[in-house]
Amino acid sequence: MVHLNMQIVGSISAVSSSLHVGKAGPMVHTSACIAALMGQGGSKKYLLTWKWLRFFKNDRDRRDLVTCGSAAGIAAAFRAPVGGVLFALEEMASWWRSALLWRAFFTTAIVAIVLRALIDVCWRGQCGLFGTGGLIMYDVTSVDVAYHLRDVPSVIILGVIGGILGSVYNFILHKVLRIYNLINEKGTAYKILLACSISIFTSCLLFGLPWLAPCLPCPLDATEPCPTIGRSGNYKKFQCPPGQYNDLASLFFNTNDDAIKTYSARTPTLSASYGRFVGMLVSSGSNLNHGLYAVLGSASLLGGSMRMTVSLCVIILELTNNLLLLPLIMLVLLVSKTVADAFNGNIYDIIMKLKGFPYLEAHAEPYMRQLMVGDVVTGPLQVFHGIEKVGTIVHVLRTTGHNGFPVIAEPPLSESPVLFGLILRAHLITLLKTKAFLHAPEPIDVDAFKYFSANDFAKKGLVKMTKFKI
Amino acid sequence: MVHLNMQIVGSISAVSSSLHVGKAGPMVHTSACIAALMGQGGSKKYLLTWKWLRFFKNDRDRRDLVTCGSAAGIAAAFRAPVGGVLFALEEMASWWRSALLWRAFFTTAIVAIVLRALIDVCWRGQCGLFGTGGLIMYDVTSVDVAYHLRDVPSVIILGVIGGILGSVYNFILHKVLRIYNLINEKGTAYKILLACSISIFTSCLLFGLPWLAPCLPCPLDATEPCPTIGRSGNYKKFQCPPGQYNDLASLFFNTNDDAIKTYSARTPTLSASYGRFVGMLVSSGSNLNHGLYAVLGSASLLGGSMRMTVSLCVIILELTNNLLLLPLIMLVLLVSKTVADAFNGNIYDIIMKLKGFPYLEAHAEPYMRQLMVGDVVTGPLQVFHGIEKVGTIVHVLRTTGHNGFPVIAEPPLSESPVLFGLILRAHLITLLKTKAFLHAPEPIDVDAFKYFSANDFAKKGLVKMTKFKI
Repeated sequence: MVHLNMQIVGSISAVSSSLHVGKAGPMVHTSACIAALMGQGGSKKYLLTWKWLRFFKNDRDRRDLVTCGSAAGIAAAFRAPVGGVLFALEEMASWWRSALLWRAFFTTAIVAIVLRALIDVCWRGQCGLFGTGGLIMYDVTSVDVAYHLRDVPSVIILGVIGGILGSVYNFILHKVLRIYNLINEKGTAYKILLACSISIFTSCLLFGLPWLAPCLPCPLDATEPCPTIGRSGNYKKFQCPPGQYNDLASLFFNTNDDAIKTYSARTPTLSASYGRFVGMLVSSGSNLNHGLYAVLGSASLLGGSMRMTVSLCVIILELTNNLLLLPLIMLVLLVSKTVADAFNGNIYDIIMKLKGFPYLEAHAEPYMRQLMVGDVVTGPLQVFHGIEKVGTIVHVLRTTGHNGFPVIAEPPLSESPVLFGLILRAHLITLLKTKAFLHAPEPIDVDAFKYFSANDFAKKGLVKMTKFKI
Repeated sequence: MVHLNMQIVGSISAVSSSLHVGKAGPMVHTSACIAALMGQGGSKKYLLTWKWLRFFKNDRDRRDLVTCGSAAGIAAAFRAPVGGVLFALEEMASWWRSALLWRAFFTTAIVAIVLRALIDVCWRGQCGLFGTGGLIMYDVTSVDVAYHLRDVPSVIILGVIGGILGSVYNFILHKVLRIYNLINEKGTAYKILLACSISIFTSCLLFGLPWLAPCLPCPLDATEPCPTIGRSGNYKKFQCPPGQYNDLASLFFNTNDDAIKTYSARTPTLSASYGRFVGMLVSSGSNLNHGLYAVLGSASLLGGSMRMTVSLCVIILELTNNLLLLPLIMLVLLVSKTVADAFNGNIYDIIMKLKGFPYLEAHAEPYMRQLMVGDVVTGPLQVFHGIEKVGTIVHVLRTTGHNGFPVIAEPPLSESPVLFGLILRAHLITLLKTKAFLHAPEPIDVDAFKYFSANDFAKKGLVKMTKFKI
């Protein structure tokens, strides 16, 4: 399950990087990795281990830690603490407990407070580019959000197109990832070759495309130096003559904060540009601000691809700080998710299925109803009795690769054969290692909890335990 | 479970009215009642029944409907759609499914869009007082939210005091409700007497207290008529001479929207006034706006009493439309919930326990681990066999009040006694009513799903079925 959750995090990071959400992916991944490390009781290899971490060394706490870690990642990347909690709730956790909600909220509250404190410390620019953006990345409070009933049809059209484009994006991603999988299977050399060629290709695009963009004259009312070379700013000189700047280069070679802040105002980018485009098309029938169409466009495309509703809504709200947009954002997300759901699954499910992770769906597939336990276990079945010789157990563990063994009490110990349950290989190994043997083959009514604690049977990190070694 | 959920809704409405949240309580209650009515398949008594409603006539859909209904109520009352979803998630639903999240989001999105459309239609004041408030009830966007690290200690103190006061509030409420329960048990006359005396007492306070308040001169820069009689407005004349207004009367006899909008700016009210008071006390060490202290004060008191985190946070954000407040609100909620949890449970749990509703806690009480099934069922046990005579079943149903009967197959039908499961009285009655009898006492391998659908066994509304009637 932890492995699984880590992989969801992996897919999220893949998605967010591919959707140009920028630093969110790596940040979510990093936070979740730190959480998983704590859930393993630290790392002995890198001498990062503390004694108190052993309290988290069980499946449930490890899962909770990874969930909270990803919430912290989203909270830090988007500076959207409530969005982080909701993201963890909507995408990460299969089963939600009220304790988990409280823990995730605690985590992101700490993130918000630390972030705000650091922004406070760094406000004079002592920390490089950090802290200049403030808590709200892309503030549209000043934009006058006046919309009326007649704007609704164009917003619905935006949602439908966004849903279709989002599902098309998922479809293409599926195909591309399958090609990647085929290449990766051929060996390490091919893997490295693939990574290198993608990186070279992207670099060529990033550096080559701006050469095709025309140079624009610097605006007279620019509040920052224009054009600039070798420093952050919204007016990159690139190949342009003095007094002019390159539009596309400014977008590509900018910090994420600045790019987000300017993207809807001036420069076109992936999903927002689509919204702006639709906005221009339908602008005859509606008098909504084009910038608002850009925000709604990104919402619809993200909704069509990720299929999140509440969390996406809150993240966009926390990015833009304008609650008056809420009804329109909700409408566009509803429409785009509904439309996209008619075509294919959400992007995380697609990636997890492609990677072959053992993901347990909320609903069983219809064919599974016909399955018996015998259809899915590896035979021949090895059964242990209520009282068993140590030698037999060791022999069975050595000769089979089974992970669990049914325990059955037979006459004369009981009147009729009774299935006690299943004992796991890992638990047997723990019992053997602690030499919890009895000399006489007698059934005893001993309370096992006196000699063992749940901690003794907790998984020790992610070390593989499939082979039995004494 | 539906009954239970309705009761949670009831407690919420009790809480919100007692906490002066005003119209939220009745609105949540109304929405949940409508949802419950739909879940029962409409009401035959009031001729409100449609055929398609029978699709919701099962426990799960009914529960989901009530949850979505309460979300819609919060969304409409506070004009906080996302807050509504989170409220339903945090307080209403014991088990959360992703489908439920999506349904609740859908419900509140419709609420938000309809609300926005109605505000759009009513903006010229054609609909009485509705629509004048806009989507954001208490806008503090214009307030300059400048806070620094040195403000944190005073906010933490505010949270601690809020937590203590919140738990004291819960404690007093518990005592008062117990007295009410004792009075109500004495009969209907006492119930009516209690309701009348409370209503007279409240009316006396509402009408009497403003007489004690001094008259204030109308501000020269007032944007509305001052003083007013017999119409809505923030400057009520009451007993004052012309040119003056009564402060307290303006608060009491105002619409909720206007009261919320002005409460932090001018007039003191329940929880916000406490925040303002603390703000004034600690203002020497901090330069936070007193209005912000008022908001934080209400957050801390609500957090200390209701113990909600994420939903309260979002509802306050949606009321105030200022995301810059987020870190401080999160901090104050964290502190107040933690402090209050040390003293007693949240207000909903207290009310439910007092009313004696069968609420299933997430964790079992320690003593329950020792309980056997035999300790909680009514004896003597009535067992049915795999094949049973209709006459026997009817006799047992008539003579006992049991709600469920174990079904056991015994030799010669099976090798050893096997417990098939439990059959409910309601299901037996359904089978008897449809005359699903066999003439020969033979075990048949018939697929029961061919003759019955899950709908046949669904509960029919909230009609009591404890007594067997043919």
